[in-house]
Order: sequence, then structure tokens, then C-alpha cells
Amino acid sequence: MRKVQVIGIGAGDPGQLTPQAVGAMRSTDVFFLLDKGEAEAELVRLRRDLLETHLPQGTYRVVEARDPERDRVAGGAAYSPAVGDWRSARAEVYERLIAEELGEDDSGAFLVWGDPALYDSTLGILQEVLERGMVAFEYDVVPGISSVSALAARHRTGLNRVARPVQITTGRRLAEGIPEGVDDVVVVLDAHQVFRWCAAEDADIYWGAYLGTPDEILVSGPVAEAAPRIERLRAEARERKGWIMDTYLLRRRAGER
Amino acid sequence: MRKVQVIGIGAGDPGQLTPQAVGAMRSTDVFFLLDKGEAEAELVRLRRDLLETHLPQGTYRVVEARDPERDRVAGGAAYSPAVGDWRSARAEVYERLIAEELGEDDSGAFLVWGDPALYDSTLGILQEVLERGMVAFEYDVVPGISSVSALAARHRTGLNRVARPVQITTGRRLAEGIPEGVDDVVVVLDAHQVFRWCAAEDADIYWGAYLGTPDEILVSGPVAEAAPRIERLRAEARERKGWIMDTYLLRRRAGER
Ligand SMILES: C[S@@+](CC[C@H](N)C(=O)[O-])C[C@H]1O[C@@H](n2cnc3c(N)ncnc32)[C@H](O)[C@@H]1O
Ligand SMILES: C[S@@+](CC[C@H](N)C(=O)[O-])C[C@H]1O[C@@H](n2cnc3c(N)ncnc32)[C@H](O)[C@@H]1O
Repeated sequence: MRKVQVIGIGAGDPGQLTPQAVGAMRSTDVFFLLDKGEAEAELVRLRRDLLETHLPQGTYRVVEARDPERDRVAGGAAYSPAVGDWRSARAEVYERLIAEELGEDDSGAFLVWGDPALYDSTLGILQEVLERGMVAFEYDVVPGISSVSALAARHRTGLNRVARPVQITTGRRLAEGIPEGVDDVVVVLDAHQVFRWCAAEDADIYWGAYLGTPDEILVSGPVAEAAPRIERLRAEARERKGWIMDTYLLRRRAGER
Repeated sequence: MRKVQVIGIGAGDPGQLTPQAVGAMRSTDVFFLLDKGEAEAELVRLRRDLLETHLPQGTYRVVEARDPERDRVAGGAAYSPAVGDWRSARAEVYERLIAEELGEDDSGAFLVWGDPALYDSTLGILQEVLERGMVAFEYDVVPGISSVSALAARHRTGLNRVARPVQITTGRRLAEGIPEGVDDVVVVLDAHQVFRWCAAEDADIYWGAYLGTPDEILVSGPVAEAAPRIERLRAEARERKGWIMDTYLLRRRAGER
């Protein structure tokens, strides 16, 4: 039976690649690296570096593929109503990779940024490929340090306050307002800096870009004061690198302790 | 300056201890292991094993301390209105450990189960110790694989659905109802199996106990069907081991894709 592993590789710091992930990589014959655009080109390079660091040359193969385009805003990812179509298109690509590149007893792997359980479509797509029934395989998941954990660690703060909930959401959702009943909200996939709209809130923000990489930037403070600073640093960094990856925790003071 | 490191060690699987965590352990002179009760005794042992596996003998010291008691239900942790007092009592213990056990240039560490950012009081207590102003130190945080990430990986599922939020909360909070506006809820610290009250919901549950350890148990399915099974397995396991650590994802179907 073909085997597929979905391996979380952490959100940028090579010191956050777990031994379990390295073990899974060592048992892999073929790595599938999917290129989705500008930021991803650098991320594909990072994955290649990881492989070269951890695996003996000649023990594995790398197959690069172009991920079908989707509705994208420059420098970030936006989900559109067409997300369903885009998933099917991806499922076809994944199906072809598994069917054509893996022999019956081979093991393939997808290296997923951060933790595969957070805002990553690989697991959903593999499920879809299985449901299509054209190719059979087993699959396994190796968890990784997410950008959310990395953010909290760098700011030396918890995500939740004692006995209280924390919500993880997207920029697009935050645009509908800070959710009811939670005072701690982590935001990923925010191409529009929605935190700026929260400047009237009595809240703190803990922001981080390129976490775990040499380009890492951290800003924290009352959101009204920090927002303009983040906006400026973010624009400069994006200009310089051509893309940005950032995430933040918004913490309403109302719920203090 | 004294240095303190708060090191996430993952939620049970030694393969989830990151190289960054091992590096931080290697730079530590004194490890503080706090014992909080039955389950914790085994967890303290696990931490000692990690030290013995990863560090050359004689290069570090271990200081065990008794964590002040708090309002506890057998086999789980409950937060009481006295949680503030309990935190101050703990702050005193931590303050004494840092002041008395660390020399001016020493480095101390707390090994935190899972990820220090999730439902762990170490960071809050260190902040409190600093605010008391009796002992000065720098501190750093190393993220870990949380039980939440471990749960999702073992069930091979994402925590969120595409472009939607996920909330992490406690059993006590869930008892107030599945929160508004989210269909994916991860529950930790549930000593009362509150998921049983959700049996009328059109929801799936992904449950895991002792994740990442040889005792691991996984159950998933529609909550109405799975709940009695989980209840039975949980009771048996707790009986057998004397304590249990479990967590689960509740996924309302209403929001499917
Ligand atoms: C498609 S999601 C994938 C998340 C990933 N699975 C994880 O666990 O971190 C991408 C979003 O994660 C966040 N992100 C990922 N890596 C990051 C990093 N190194 N620094 C800051 N944010 C990051 C950003 O919000 C980005 O828009
Ligand atoms: C005080 S919280 C600490 C959470 C920890 N910091 C983490 O990141 O997993 C303890 C709760 O985490 C969950 N938990 C921790 N380790 C677990 C494991 N190995 N298996 C299942 N649940 C676990 C349980 O819900 C438990 O009540």
C-alpha cells in the first residue's frame, strides 16, 4: 500500500523541527513540494534546505509541482467563493502526484509549514483524493510547532488567560468584529491589517512577522499605539522582501485576569 | 543576571521534543520540577527521564518542589475563585526557588508539558514574581507541541475548517454551551466529560487520552454515539492508571465545508 505522510516542519526556525518529523522524513522516498507563488518560492527553498540538512543525499527524490492558482491578493492569501473549485483542482494535482510518482510500496510526504492542523489544506485535499477513489493510500500526520505557538513564545505570553478561552481566526473573520465571548484572539492570514480597525478597543496586540527566521520582527503594546508602528514596519518589510508572513494575538483588557 | 527558561517539552511523545528545547536544556544549570499531585508524579518522572536521555550526567542539578495545593477534583484540575491566592502562593515558591537555587550567573529552567502558551500558569507566575521585585532575572520561552496539536495529528484532522475559526476552551466553559460563532471547539481540562451534554448536537467528537504515550486512546465519531464509549474507556483507564489526561475536538456539522 502506498503511504503518505503529512509532516509539520515548524513555522520557520529549523530548531523547531521535531525528531519525529526527521524520522518521518527519513522514511520517505518522494517529497512533494508545491509551489504557490512568491512567498512560497522561498518556502520551497527552505524545505529543500531542511532535506539537505537532515537526509543523506541520494536516499530520496523531490518532485516539485505547481499548485493551481486561486484568488490571491498580493502578499497574502484570500479565500474566495471559488475555494471549492480550487480544492478540486488541487485534489487532481495531488492525486496525479501520488498515483504517478509513488510506486506501490513507496512512501511520499508533504512538508507542511507550521502545524498541519492549522489553516493548511493538505489534510482536506488528501481526504478528497481518497473519496474520489482513484488511488488508494494510507496516511499519517506529524504535528509541528505552529506560527501561533511561535508567536506566543517570542512574546513570552500565554495564548489564553487563566481558565478562559482563546480563539484562532482569520483576518477576514476579524473584519466582522472581535468575536463574542472571547478576549484573546489570534489572527492568521490577514492581508489587510484588520487590527487597525480595533484601535478603539481597549486591547493589547502581540504581533510577529517572519517568526523564527532571521527576518523576524516583533511588536507589542496597546493596539492604538502599536498599530501605526506595525503598519509602517510591515510595509517596509514587504517592500524589502517582496512578501510577508505575519500573525498576531489581540488581547482585550476588559477580561484582565 | 539570572536566567530562566520556560521550555515546552511536548505532550507526551519524546519524539516531539524539539532540538531548540534540547539546546535550552543543555544550557541549563538547575531544573525546577514541581510536583502537583498524582498525575504530576508520573509527569515529573517523565521529565527526569528526558533529562537523563538528553543531558550528560553531572552537568545539571534538579530541584524538586511541592506546588501549593489548590481546589482540585480527583483526576482533573478545577479552577476556583481562589485561583488568585493560589497564584500568589505559587509565586512565592517560584521566587524562593529562583532566589535561593540560582547563583547570579546561573540559568534555571521549568519544563512545561505541551506548549507553555496553552493553559499553563508558569509564564503568568514568572511575570508575577518579577512584579514583586524581590528577585531579578531574564526569561525566555521555547514553544512545544501542545496536546491540541497532538490530538489533531493523531486524528489526522485539521483544527479549523477552511477560512473558519477554532476556539480552545475548558470543560468548565463548555458547560455554558458551545460558544457562539464557532463550530470547531477544542476542550482541555474537562474533568466532568461535558461532551456528554452535547449529545443532542449534530456534531462529531475527536477524543484522545494520554496522547503520545504508550497508553494513548483515541475515539472519534458522532458525539451521540461516541460519548458512551468514551465515558466507559475513560473510566476504565482512570481506574487502571489512577489519573487521566484527555482532550477533544467538538465539530458541529452545521458548518460543514
Ligand atoms: C496558510 S496559514 C498556515 C499556518 C501554518 N500551518 C501554521 O501552523 O503556522 C499561513 C498563515 O500563518 C501565519 N504564519 C505562518 N508562518 C508564519 C511565520 N513564520 N511568521 C508569522 N506568521 C506566520 C501567517 O498568518 C500566514 O498568513
Ligand atoms: C494544564 S493543561 C496544559 C496543556 C499543555 N500546556 C499543552 O500544551 O498541552 C492540561 C490539559 O491538557 C490536556 N492534555 C495535556 N497533555 C495531554 C495528553 N498527553 N493527552 C491528552 N490530553 C492532554 C488535558 O486536557 C489536560 O487537562
